[in-house]
Amino acid sequence: MTKQPPALPEPQRGHLQSRRGFLAASTVAAGTIVSGRALADSLADVPAREPGEDLSGLSERSPFVHISRIPEAGPGQRNVDPGDAINSKAPLDKLVGSITPADLHYERSHAGVPMLDPAQHRLLIHGMTEKQLVLTMDDIRAMPSMSRTVFIECTGNGWENWHKADETLTVQNTHGLISTNEWTGVPLSFLLDLVGVDRDALWMLAEGGDGAAVARSVPLTDEVIDEAMLAYGQNGEPLRPAHGFPLRLVLPGFEGNMNIKWLRRLKFGDRPFMTRWETDRYTQLRPDGKAEQFHLHQDVNSVITSPSGMMSIRPGYNRITGLAWSGHGKVTRVEVSTDGGASWHDAQLNGPVLAKAQTRFQMDWAWNGNPSRIVSRSTDDKGNVQPDRKSFLERVGATALFHYNAQQTWRIGADGSVRNALD
Amino acid sequence: MTKQPPALPEPQRGHLQSRRGFLAASTVAAGTIVSGRALADSLADVPAREPGEDLSGLSERSPFVHISRIPEAGPGQRNVDPGDAINSKAPLDKLVGSITPADLHYERSHAGVPMLDPAQHRLLIHGMTEKQLVLTMDDIRAMPSMSRTVFIECTGNGWENWHKADETLTVQNTHGLISTNEWTGVPLSFLLDLVGVDRDALWMLAEGGDGAAVARSVPLTDEVIDEAMLAYGQNGEPLRPAHGFPLRLVLPGFEGNMNIKWLRRLKFGDRPFMTRWETDRYTQLRPDGKAEQFHLHQDVNSVITSPSGMMSIRPGYNRITGLAWSGHGKVTRVEVSTDGGASWHDAQLNGPVLAKAQTRFQMDWAWNGNPSRIVSRSTDDKGNVQPDRKSFLERVGATALFHYNAQQTWRIGADGSVRNALD
Repeated sequence: MTKQPPALPEPQRGHLQSRRGFLAASTVAAGTIVSGRALADSLADVPAREPGEDLSGLSERSPFVHISRIPEAGPGQRNVDPGDAINSKAPLDKLVGSITPADLHYERSHAGVPMLDPAQHRLLIHGMTEKQLVLTMDDIRAMPSMSRTVFIECTGNGWENWHKADETLTVQNTHGLISTNEWTGVPLSFLLDLVGVDRDALWMLAEGGDGAAVARSVPLTDEVIDEAMLAYGQNGEPLRPAHGFPLRLVLPGFEGNMNIKWLRRLKFGDRPFMTRWETDRYTQLRPDGKAEQFHLHQDVNSVITSPSGMMSIRPGYNRITGLAWSGHGKVTRVEVSTDGGASWHDAQLNGPVLAKAQTRFQMDWAWNGNPSRIVSRSTDDKGNVQPDRKSFLERVGATALFHYNAQQTWRIGADGSVRNALD
Repeated sequence: MTKQPPALPEPQRGHLQSRRGFLAASTVAAGTIVSGRALADSLADVPAREPGEDLSGLSERSPFVHISRIPEAGPGQRNVDPGDAINSKAPLDKLVGSITPADLHYERSHAGVPMLDPAQHRLLIHGMTEKQLVLTMDDIRAMPSMSRTVFIECTGNGWENWHKADETLTVQNTHGLISTNEWTGVPLSFLLDLVGVDRDALWMLAEGGDGAAVARSVPLTDEVIDEAMLAYGQNGEPLRPAHGFPLRLVLPGFEGNMNIKWLRRLKFGDRPFMTRWETDRYTQLRPDGKAEQFHLHQDVNSVITSPSGMMSIRPGYNRITGLAWSGHGKVTRVEVSTDGGASWHDAQLNGPVLAKAQTRFQMDWAWNGNPSRIVSRSTDDKGNVQPDRKSFLERVGATALFHYNAQQTWRIGADGSVRNALD
């Protein structure tokens, strides 16, 4: 048999020049220029090559990659015994893109991580409904499903920076209680139809199967009915135990603790159930001594992840990149300042920009070697603008603990060191 | 201090009835109905609860979840020594949503998996360019980046079904050589500008640092210049060694082997370089004895992942779900037949539907218990329609090995057994 090449693809000439016009191309001091084509071609010689490692059933990480979360016992309480940890923060400084790997998704728990057997697990649905149902995981996985990429954020994210600027904090320390996954599960609305929820049932109690019995009241607003799901999958695979296996509630945009993990019960009623998690634990103390309850949404926020705390940079080209998000909708704009907020420049947003998901932003920057302060500020499609720290504290006061969304400043010294700063 | 609840969110009445109108809600035989509210409420009692496992730096999978790839030495060659495996297939039957976890992304390698040190790794760019550059990974990670969720598919995906129907095959066996990740890296176009590619350089050689020195010629079409990237991240984290760490080429929509892993060299020229990977290995033998070269794109395709091979179902409600994709663009339609292709019904597509990414589809189905054949057929936005097996073989012949995209049939027996079938 004779092999004859058929017609090859025909690239067209003359379309290469400055097609994209990256501003940075001329300023990036990248790489080593090799003098002369002969030398370059000599470098192309294939080095001695040896067979690699065997193929496998699971692709492990490279031994050269060191990436993990930081377990903490509370603000500033690192290096604790594992049994004392109450959260574990995602390494935002080492992540790229917008998805968080499932094993690096931040963790927050009030009584450790229960190891539940999916064959034994049940979901009870009761209260103001036509039918009172007990569902197995097989029942739930057989139902119509939806998938959606959204962030979940602990309402305590940012709490390190309420009061003092610890200069040794990394962005993992300051903002690591947020992650974005593709969640898959049953739309809540499907279950509402299935059990026949009363028209006067305006609230839903969701209760977890953990040792602390975390339970929250969820208002059945249009937003919740349209967007909530009972998730059994994250990033394509079954939930991991730390993230609620076998079943969790996902409430896009709502504070993390309401996305009940290890979900065992939904009860419908005509008023909030006033669990201790909403009358006490997750209330917000205001300067006037009153407490705010049911601050449901995570507010518009952003942070520069590189350069960020404890990194160091050199004069010349530096790419500024970070993440922006809003529990109210889509991020429409991220501005970056390199002079502590005196002037602002629009950053580029990586698409597709998804509502209630983390959005990656970046901006080219040529650092002149002088002390600088870099800051980001995000805006969402509801018109919310991330406040600076001063106006945020004027509004909220310093007695609160949750929903910190003030702009994050990184201070850059003349030596190129990058440090956490509050102004 | 007195705590007073501020105004609560106010859900509105009367918006719960039949808001979504899922067709399936009335047909799903889900769960156990509990008689009477008193009994249901008694089930709500919180069982004895104990503290769970400690929090951690990495969230491991549940001990109740068993999920991994299947290493193979070629079509039908399973249960081989790890050293003989040439690919490792993703467990499509156990995945949900559309993303593939990084450690479950399919693997294909011609000389095992090299363990490269990123500090030592270099990328040489040379040939018809103004500058000949050697780049470190630090150089590359400092450049402007992009992220995009796309599938990569081995051109051999589906090769199990060219000639005979092995009834014992699962969908992992028949279609497991495809995966979808969020890839992050430097746009190729940025590098083209950086090195100043000649206007007559219409082809690019990309060479891997593996023992087999896999190398392919890539035409610099508008599509490639607009979409290709040099990726260092997958699903938010650094590449894993099996998937090209520290650097791989990502060519959205192109056959898998062109997405060169362990990328060490790009060379620009005015014609294809005619490596053995494109003159021999990845050519397609036609019935007339000629060989087709440079079949670049993966064609429009789909497969039902549940119910699928070696599963069993029961009469009544069954959700049919699967994945559809096209290397030419977006999936616009997936039809499902439950009578072997005699009649077709539109399936629901999970959004957002992304170009050149796997799209999850689903359809409600009430199985009447009679022998049935379920099939899916996808259409993309270029008007390509996935062919049935008969017309596919009439066009391509049975001498080929690659680019199998015929419709996949699962035969369901009266006993509910689901088996691979060719008609």
